[in-house]
Amino acid sequence: MTRQVFLLALFAIMAPSVARAQATDPLRSWNDGPAKSAITSFVSRATTEGGPEFVPQPERIAVFDNDGTLWCEQPIYFQLAFVLDRVRALAPDQPEWKGQSPFKEVLAGDVKSVLAGGQKPIGQLMAVTHSGMTTDEFAVTVRDWLRTARHPKFNRPYNECIYQPMIELLAYLRAHGFKTFIVSGGGVEFMRVWAEDAYGVPPEQVIGSSGKLKYELRDGQPVLVKLPELDFIDDKAGKPVGIQQHIGRRPILAFGNSDGDFEMLEWTTASESPGLSLRSGEPGRPRPQLGLLIHHTDATREYAYDRNSPIGQLARGLDEAPKRGWIVIDMQNDWKDVFP
Amino acid sequence: MTRQVFLLALFAIMAPSVARAQATDPLRSWNDGPAKSAITSFVSRATTEGGPEFVPQPERIAVFDNDGTLWCEQPIYFQLAFVLDRVRALAPDQPEWKGQSPFKEVLAGDVKSVLAGGQKPIGQLMAVTHSGMTTDEFAVTVRDWLRTARHPKFNRPYNECIYQPMIELLAYLRAHGFKTFIVSGGGVEFMRVWAEDAYGVPPEQVIGSSGKLKYELRDGQPVLVKLPELDFIDDKAGKPVGIQQHIGRRPILAFGNSDGDFEMLEWTTASESPGLSLRSGEPGRPRPQLGLLIHHTDATREYAYDRNSPIGQLARGLDEAPKRGWIVIDMQNDWKDVFP
Repeated sequence: MTRQVFLLALFAIMAPSVARAQATDPLRSWNDGPAKSAITSFVSRATTEGGPEFVPQPERIAVFDNDGTLWCEQPIYFQLAFVLDRVRALAPDQPEWKGQSPFKEVLAGDVKSVLAGGQKPIGQLMAVTHSGMTTDEFAVTVRDWLRTARHPKFNRPYNECIYQPMIELLAYLRAHGFKTFIVSGGGVEFMRVWAEDAYGVPPEQVIGSSGKLKYELRDGQPVLVKLPELDFIDDKAGKPVGIQQHIGRRPILAFGNSDGDFEMLEWTTASESPGLSLRSGEPGRPRPQLGLLIHHTDATREYAYDRNSPIGQLARGLDEAPKRGWIVIDMQNDWKDVFP
Repeated sequence: MTRQVFLLALFAIMAPSVARAQATDPLRSWNDGPAKSAITSFVSRATTEGGPEFVPQPERIAVFDNDGTLWCEQPIYFQLAFVLDRVRALAPDQPEWKGQSPFKEVLAGDVKSVLAGGQKPIGQLMAVTHSGMTTDEFAVTVRDWLRTARHPKFNRPYNECIYQPMIELLAYLRAHGFKTFIVSGGGVEFMRVWAEDAYGVPPEQVIGSSGKLKYELRDGQPVLVKLPELDFIDDKAGKPVGIQQHIGRRPILAFGNSDGDFEMLEWTTASESPGLSLRSGEPGRPRPQLGLLIHHTDATREYAYDRNSPIGQLARGLDEAPKRGWIVIDMQNDWKDVFP
């Protein structure tokens, strides 16, 4: 046997098994290592019937932040990109915006000074782009925007700037009886339009920030009108509140990427949970839980940012993860692929 | 063959088939008739693949009022019975209540004058019984109350005063790929304690009225504290709003019993729904939908009330059901059994 024939034969034997391993590994975009092991080991323990950490299926609630956890959030939150594009699209019908802040800055392309202005200008931009229409009309606008808008760095639709490893993780958890929820500071009506196609998460499992709605009849047909009044901010300490209001049960797995997710992870991974033991009826049992944070370390394939980033700041989470037992995912090392 | 032997033989042949028919009818507590037919026909059309009214499984959302629809609501809302019992239980530690309205009236058993006082006294009673504790503590209180309290007419625990035909309907819909939700004016934290056991509806599919929550740390452990501030009233025009906020998708079946459910049925059965067609992607298709109302006509087995009842008033619904195509269930005639 020549060396060449030997190598060809070796490949013929190996290739199918490599392909098979890739096809059967539900987390194939995750590199082997402690992060991946922590996930598979947790799922195995939570689903092993008769085991000490078994969790009945209805209690397998997993919650995921969206911006920076399921999809990219740089160079600006995608919903903000939508807002700026909408202002530009609406401008021809609003000639007075040319002389009016913060609209004139947006139209002049000076996004920096708008962002520097803090909550007030953003609130004004949100009001004109996110209220005054029905929920159905708003959904159509979001859907149409996704069809045409492109991410400035990746040159692909925003709803394709989603993380392949996280898509796999969501599917893997669902295959093991978990119910997967999004718990995001982003607008709930904005996310629900595309979350089901992108992540397999149906609208009723998307929790987010929201404005008030008003029920009324238009030409005899009922509609829900989006009002310019804020109803709920699903961020920081608002996340456990949003979880309780929508789910009513404490998650056993929480996945985030910024300090806005701190309380969600804290709530999920707390050692005591009378609420859970109340249902499973065994107050003395240890409560299985897992907290995870994505650390954006990949300037080449995505972005690298943490403590000093105005978007997705991660400082306290990095400091406290070790003592709280939270797993920190190093995007550069733990992810084989980033986007689908 | 003697007549007796013949009859015995006949029974031996018939008995198993009767038993089998009962065992295989998923709606066995419903008498045959137009109401039952409307339900089974609708479910058949919505689940017939390739049929003109086929609804993809994720869009099979069914919403149910609770008080008077899934369980009894007479002689007073059960949650109000809980409130009154809690005031009595807390009274020994609150000696000042003896001289203070509305507490002194409750302690004197004069519930009528409390109810006559309208929203203010009820609000005061709700505040002392539904806030100031953590969500976990509140859940324990509700669970303990259900163990001991008994319904005055049926002399059974309140969570056993649930309607057997409706339990069967919920299970029947789920067996056909429907996701069943409760959309009730009742308190969401109150219902979630027992709804899963009673109806098979998990906490995350219970929508109700709610108070504000506050996240805080107690002895290093995170808790959610129930505040005395109202957050959302899930009644009348609030029901479509609650449905949109929690589910984000228009139901195709809505079941209620009072005029508090009118807008929920109106929203569900509206002919136009860009929101639905947006998802299924076929704007020209007819939108399958079904609205149903229970008419409490059974003074013997349950209660008889409608237009003039202060609890569960049903007037506009009865007037408009025929022209809107809503099905009115006549409890006395349509239900073989009422309670399990």
